[in-house]
Amino acid sequence: MAKVGVVLSGCGVFDGSEIHEAVAMLLALDQQGADYQCMAPRKELEVVDHLTKQPAAEKRDVLAESARIARGEIVNLSDVNVSDYDAFVFPGGFGAAKNLCTFAADGVDCTVDSDVQRLLVEAQAAGKPIGLACIAPVIAAKVFGRTLSPQLTIGHDAATAQQIEAMGARHQPCDVDDVVVDASNRIVTTPAYMEAERIGQVFTGIAKLVASVLQLVEQPASVQ
Amino acid sequence: MAKVGVVLSGCGVFDGSEIHEAVAMLLALDQQGADYQCMAPRKELEVVDHLTKQPAAEKRDVLAESARIARGEIVNLSDVNVSDYDAFVFPGGFGAAKNLCTFAADGVDCTVDSDVQRLLVEAQAAGKPIGLACIAPVIAAKVFGRTLSPQLTIGHDAATAQQIEAMGARHQPCDVDDVVVDASNRIVTTPAYMEAERIGQVFTGIAKLVASVLQLVEQPASVQ
Repeated sequence: MAKVGVVLSGCGVFDGSEIHEAVAMLLALDQQGADYQCMAPRKELEVVDHLTKQPAAEKRDVLAESARIARGEIVNLSDVNVSDYDAFVFPGGFGAAKNLCTFAADGVDCTVDSDVQRLLVEAQAAGKPIGLACIAPVIAAKVFGRTLSPQLTIGHDAATAQQIEAMGARHQPCDVDDVVVDASNRIVTTPAYMEAERIGQVFTGIAKLVASVLQLVEQPASVQ
Repeated sequence: MAKVGVVLSGCGVFDGSEIHEAVAMLLALDQQGADYQCMAPRKELEVVDHLTKQPAAEKRDVLAESARIARGEIVNLSDVNVSDYDAFVFPGGFGAAKNLCTFAADGVDCTVDSDVQRLLVEAQAAGKPIGLACIAPVIAAKVFGRTLSPQLTIGHDAATAQQIEAMGARHQPCDVDDVVVDASNRIVTTPAYMEAERIGQVFTGIAKLVASVLQLVEQPASVQ
């Protein structure tokens, strides 16, 4: 049974992980016979009131809020040993662009959380597949753009696609119910709520992302 | 297209709506061709830290936290006109037993939030089906136990089943992947995380609950 790390960034689309995407990943992993472990960094997030969609004068902890999606079963990203896992997946939401990296504020000049950076570099070096949904592919663009030039998608958003290319990755347009598989770099991406208008579309794309990731797990990387 | 109200109680299993159950309801409704609207009461909830599973010295607003699950698209329960909807569904989580009623603290002597009480009484009187998952059936036991004696399930938990019967309802044991349909009272229940060990089991039971609720919507109540 494949063991997949699900990297969360809080709980709620405007300041954390997009909840539908995160739950879709857990459900698809379970339905497709994989085991999962949720994980998130221990750091502060700036709260957005999801009713008014305005910033709130409040901070919360990314790991403690992510624990809501994980029903308390979560580990600190800094304690994660990459070799204990077969693959890693990242749901989207603004948390991916605010808490896992600084793309929301800094665009192509963003920095990536040091534990996220370590996890991605170690996973890729060990040939472990990585799946990213919605806006999360910008993290892979920043980490791998200049070295691997991976092929990624965020759907059809021209401005974000341009930023992905500016960071050194290659962008491929993709519909909501489909995925882009970069087989040589073992990275799978899907647009999810970058394109979706309904939760059913999100689940279709993410179930396909999970299937592609698990298929790569079954096909060990060839020696480079 | 049936329009279904999804009644939330916060965001997180220990102080609000169980997130997997809530998202499973939204996904199943969309996949089965129904439209949905999330709704929640505007009131304070006592925060539980989902990492430590201990009470936190903090309060949050039930409506604003529920808005995280709804991606901001949510209405205040007190503004809901029951006649605008074809059915209502309630996910579980401690929020259902703490914020929608006081069952977690008061057991069979609990009181029900006045807007939840109004919604349930009006919906039932108008023949609109009601679906409840996990611990949420205790709300229907309290509201309808003495008048309708509905048939409900919370799975196989003997202590909670006894409390449901003490409130005047009839309890029927039920496995995680099944539902109990009280056709005459138009109430459908499923155990979800009262029994589930995996998210896939939750989705199976909740998809069946949604199917049963939508089937009742298609079969108008006979005149009593």
